[in-house]
Amino acid sequence: MLKIGVVGYGYWGPNLVRNFSELDGCKVSAVADLDPEKVALVERRYPGLRATTDVEGVIGDPAIDAVVIATPVRTHFALAMQALRNGKDVWLEKPMTETAEQSRRLVDEAARLGRLLHVDHTFVYTGAVRKIGEIIASGDLGQVLYYDATRVNLGLFQHDVNVISDLAVHDFAILDHLLNESPVAVTASGTSHYPGTPENLAHVTLFYNSGSIAHIGVNWLAPVKVRQVLVGGSNKMIVYDDLNPSEKVKVYDTGVSFATDPNQIHQMRVGYRTGDMWAPKLENAEALRYAAEHFVKCALARRPTLTAGEAGLRIVEIIEAATESMRGRGRTVRLQGAAVHA
Amino acid sequence: MLKIGVVGYGYWGPNLVRNFSELDGCKVSAVADLDPEKVALVERRYPGLRATTDVEGVIGDPAIDAVVIATPVRTHFALAMQALRNGKDVWLEKPMTETAEQSRRLVDEAARLGRLLHVDHTFVYTGAVRKIGEIIASGDLGQVLYYDATRVNLGLFQHDVNVISDLAVHDFAILDHLLNESPVAVTASGTSHYPGTPENLAHVTLFYNSGSIAHIGVNWLAPVKVRQVLVGGSNKMIVYDDLNPSEKVKVYDTGVSFATDPNQIHQMRVGYRTGDMWAPKLENAEALRYAAEHFVKCALARRPTLTAGEAGLRIVEIIEAATESMRGRGRTVRLQGAAVHA
Amino acid sequence: MLKIGVVGYGYWGPNLVRNFSELDGCKVSAVADLDPEKVALVERRYPGLRATTDVEGVIGDPAIDAVVIATPVRTHFALAMQALRNGKDVWLEKPMTETAEQSRRLVDEAARLGRLLHVDHTFVYTGAVRKIGEIIASGDLGQVLYYDATRVNLGLFQHDVNVISDLAVHDFAILDHLLNESPVAVTASGTSHYPGTPENLAHVTLFYNSGSIAHIGVNWLAPVKVRQVLVGGSNKMIVYDDLNPSEKVKVYDTGVSFATDPNQIHQMRVGYRTGDMWAPKLENAEALRYAAEHFVKCALARRPTLTAGEAGLRIVEIIEAATESMRGRGRTVRLQGAAVHA
Amino acid sequence: MLKIGVVGYGYWGPNLVRNFSELDGCKVSAVADLDPEKVALVERRYPGLRATTDVEGVIGDPAIDAVVIATPVRTHFALAMQALRNGKDVWLEKPMTETAEQSRRLVDEAARLGRLLHVDHTFVYTGAVRKIGEIIASGDLGQVLYYDATRVNLGLFQHDVNVISDLAVHDFAILDHLLNESPVAVTASGTSHYPGTPENLAHVTLFYNSGSIAHIGVNWLAPVKVRQVLVGGSNKMIVYDDLNPSEKVKVYDTGVSFATDPNQIHQMRVGYRTGDMWAPKLENAEALRYAAEHFVKCALARRPTLTAGEAGLRIVEIIEAATESMRGRGRTVRLQGAAVHA
Repeated sequence: MLKIGVVGYGYWGPNLVRNFSELDGCKVSAVADLDPEKVALVERRYPGLRATTDVEGVIGDPAIDAVVIATPVRTHFALAMQALRNGKDVWLEKPMTETAEQSRRLVDEAARLGRLLHVDHTFVYTGAVRKIGEIIASGDLGQVLYYDATRVNLGLFQHDVNVISDLAVHDFAILDHLLNESPVAVTASGTSHYPGTPENLAHVTLFYNSGSIAHIGVNWLAPVKVRQVLVGGSNKMIVYDDLNPSEKVKVYDTGVSFATDPNQIHQMRVGYRTGDMWAPKLENAEALRYAAEHFVKCALARRPTLTAGEAGLRIVEIIEAATESMRGRGRTVRLQGAAVHA
Repeated sequence: MLKIGVVGYGYWGPNLVRNFSELDGCKVSAVADLDPEKVALVERRYPGLRATTDVEGVIGDPAIDAVVIATPVRTHFALAMQALRNGKDVWLEKPMTETAEQSRRLVDEAARLGRLLHVDHTFVYTGAVRKIGEIIASGDLGQVLYYDATRVNLGLFQHDVNVISDLAVHDFAILDHLLNESPVAVTASGTSHYPGTPENLAHVTLFYNSGSIAHIGVNWLAPVKVRQVLVGGSNKMIVYDDLNPSEKVKVYDTGVSFATDPNQIHQMRVGYRTGDMWAPKLENAEALRYAAEHFVKCALARRPTLTAGEAGLRIVEIIEAATESMRGRGRTVRLQGAAVHA
Repeated sequence: MLKIGVVGYGYWGPNLVRNFSELDGCKVSAVADLDPEKVALVERRYPGLRATTDVEGVIGDPAIDAVVIATPVRTHFALAMQALRNGKDVWLEKPMTETAEQSRRLVDEAARLGRLLHVDHTFVYTGAVRKIGEIIASGDLGQVLYYDATRVNLGLFQHDVNVISDLAVHDFAILDHLLNESPVAVTASGTSHYPGTPENLAHVTLFYNSGSIAHIGVNWLAPVKVRQVLVGGSNKMIVYDDLNPSEKVKVYDTGVSFATDPNQIHQMRVGYRTGDMWAPKLENAEALRYAAEHFVKCALARRPTLTAGEAGLRIVEIIEAATESMRGRGRTVRLQGAAVHA
Repeated sequence: MLKIGVVGYGYWGPNLVRNFSELDGCKVSAVADLDPEKVALVERRYPGLRATTDVEGVIGDPAIDAVVIATPVRTHFALAMQALRNGKDVWLEKPMTETAEQSRRLVDEAARLGRLLHVDHTFVYTGAVRKIGEIIASGDLGQVLYYDATRVNLGLFQHDVNVISDLAVHDFAILDHLLNESPVAVTASGTSHYPGTPENLAHVTLFYNSGSIAHIGVNWLAPVKVRQVLVGGSNKMIVYDDLNPSEKVKVYDTGVSFATDPNQIHQMRVGYRTGDMWAPKLENAEALRYAAEHFVKCALARRPTLTAGEAGLRIVEIIEAATESMRGRGRTVRLQGAAVHA
């Protein structure tokens, strides 16, 4: 039985408390939030549960095995480091930390102390992304030629993060999960349309050594919400529309074959083998539930989760590099993380 | 009565001959194509019409007032220059020429000789783009904050042009028409997935002095066809989906208003005034018919068309700059054309 | 402060308790369900609330002003009658009762005792239906020529009601709300595909004295879910798609005008004035919340609700008539309710 | 080489002439239309082709083997009878004739004289309907439980036929092709919204001995165009959307399995085995081309076509019965054609 303390009961905290509460194999022992109103809210909803403004007390509580941190990103590093040093396993909301350097130090500390360090990149646990992962892993798609995402919103402007950190982060995590390599370079362009606010529109391109290329377009100022990804393989191609209630993932038998026409020197035709489309059934359980269960199992078995600190770090590195490129109007920024990851 | 000679009867030529044939105020006097089979095809379809392989003869024919050139792009410069020097008005298919330098020389020669030089950026003449132009010109949209286009295809690989020149060119022309300014810088990324073929996937960002930003994603290897543009204004926003048969243009009452919440320091909310959506009725006449009629009227009245050589040149400059940036992995390329155009 | 007792905590009861709990002006005093597990569930969720298996006790409790009944339909009549006779205002789930005769007796009893009798036809309180009602009431639509609904499902087979009673009931209620008249005749066809189960597919046509005609197609065995209604008026027409998240109601400037062509005797053309489309902003508050608030206000002000017992009765009459027609393979069944209602 | 005479060059005639002209194995020898303007149009378009107002001359021309009749429906019977008696094979546009009696006499005469009699129910030859036919024939769908079509239009009001004859006729033909049985009864309701015009809105239900049920909703006054058919089988279900450019036919692994729950007497749950969806590749050749080729082959091989006179007759019988039922406000009309057809 894993005893869990949750720190932060703002936007996402209630979902975490609800999911961990309903899981077998773990127990939410305490919830901490600096805001007394949030504490009162927890008490109303979960009469038997210890709710407190004493964050330090929860992180240091010897009866607690794992700390789930759902606070603003600028507090992630300090809280997670403290929890690790108190011997806790740690679940961190995304993005992992404000800087890659902070993430690197957390990864090192977790390794040194033998603690789990998990980052909540929830999309990786959706039925859709898991199905796409299976299709790629099976070889059916062939080589991944490109990944192209549009993620635009009628949303909230955030004060402390830009739109890359808020929205493109999901695609960075999905790519980290789907591909066996990390990008070697990034270029991004974007802008803020309102003085004094973070960038609200951005386009990011990631380059990979294999020749794969990924593009992510994000925008907080769109008239409609779009969540669409194209994944082009050398054998098949996928359209992943996260807002389609019944057919989120469509797989097209649409390979390419070249047909040279000797009579026409100036035009080369690509013959499309356009075949059937197939929309596989997806598991539609709540992704957060799936992730929470995965975390509890890994913690009990003492093995890392699918989105461990190392993945979280790689993603923060991409956010940093993309933001740097965007502020340099598209200047290419190299990434070290070229090595194929396990 | 404008007497027209058409040069080139390949993919687009038949549409040009058909449209000019059915117009009042002009007459197709001759059609030339180097391929005798094409000539025979014209003869079958238009028994009374002079069809010939003698391109020079048509371009030099004193009885012809205007030459319509629908040949491969690498022949545009020489044919158009010859036609201008023979005193003809010229209609050129898009893109105008292979290089901006060539376009510049054509523009100069046309000005010197007082001839019309028109580039067939047909999208500018569609009911949809004209309606969007009216909405922007009326001030209803407010300031144009961004333009974001996705134009992907199950199409033909072309041998002599890349995907920017084939697809993004449409957006460069639309932007040139909609905005009162030209971009001052461009950055692009893209790739070719098949050795020895031009780039088949690209993402282009254009920067404007006013703060507007435009992005165009183009792809010849997509499993589905998409033709979607978002235009974000400070008052309203537009979704333009060229494949939607009944609602190509949707206008959203979706301005932005900032609502600062003093209690929450770390998050700034943007309140959306989300209101009605309106899908105006569009003229659905064939855009090419509209353009042909416009060309004939302008030729008879001796005034330039909406998409004259100067516009064609600006667009070729952007194609050149975007391709240069793409080959430099996103390096920013400056454009001179910053001045607000008339 | 209206004190409310809720009877039945199955599928819909939890939504009722949640909504009435969060409203000002009323208080949920007790919840009764025959199933001890349901009672335990209420106690866990609402520690301070009286939960009991003693249904009679709640209906007879002098401290309770209004009884909300969310039990199987075959119990509606007895429970509602008992509650009325105990002096309670009554909220009944839909359909009102098993037979029109029962509904008639409840209406009479409520009138005799001066009690509110409300039937929970929730759709009438949605932002979409209220907006359509406004458009019709304003005269913008012109005369209502037809109403055509498709309401198909991957759903549950119900044991005690057929698909008309389960799904078409929503359209009967919407029609009762939108039109100023009741149907004078009904014809229906349908079938059960599994022996011993109620009809799972049906098509119902309602005829009105004004010439309006309504059709409702319902089906429990569809591969996809559809909730679409066309409302054709003499001036404008509406498409109401309840599953469209952003544009549920679309209004088309699509009146009809006849254009006779003297040269063509055998064909009469209808010229369509096809104009703009407009998708008005809708209130997207939860319809049940809106209905609950309306009930509380009406109870405190002692005036009938929009979907009072009289409406519930008319709807049960149509269900009865449609089922009778369906079992007679489409035989026309007359309805008395022809009179224009207030 | 089949020599063909085409009679009628109005709306559909040009498509017939174009398709038969481009086919191998046949030759269009003459086109007749009473309207001299139509004759002139043919001459302009097909300089070498004999065009005439002399309909009788074409039907009686000894050099002609087959007559294609694309005139108003009220002339079908007389022209086809004359052509048969002149020893011609006959292609008739749909619907076959004004009355079933006329169709019956044509079928008898064609049989007596050994002539082909073909009715142009083009939908039967589309890639979509042929694919659905294959799926049903293979047994994959299981037993056909229902067919439910919505076919609504912003169209033309026709003077001489009602909306059943204009639109539902397509579904009658598709059903005749897909099912191995004919309906035994029909019930229909509908109305005309404009005095003196044929019914512009109708709902038709067909009953089959096997328990299958078909419904067709048709409407000339809709704000949007819809062409959607659901086909429910005991194993799989199909959605056929003729307006979907890329996925006209979708096949759902959506059988039904009953799950009785002993604890809940009053509700019986149907558990849905919801599985994958599959959108097969369809042949997208023009259906009329396919039908024309089929007719020529059958004429040369002296065997009946897929939509021979017998099918055309069955379809006219249903039109007659449905119209009779509609005018009797849904009165059931029995059909003799119950026998399973080959």
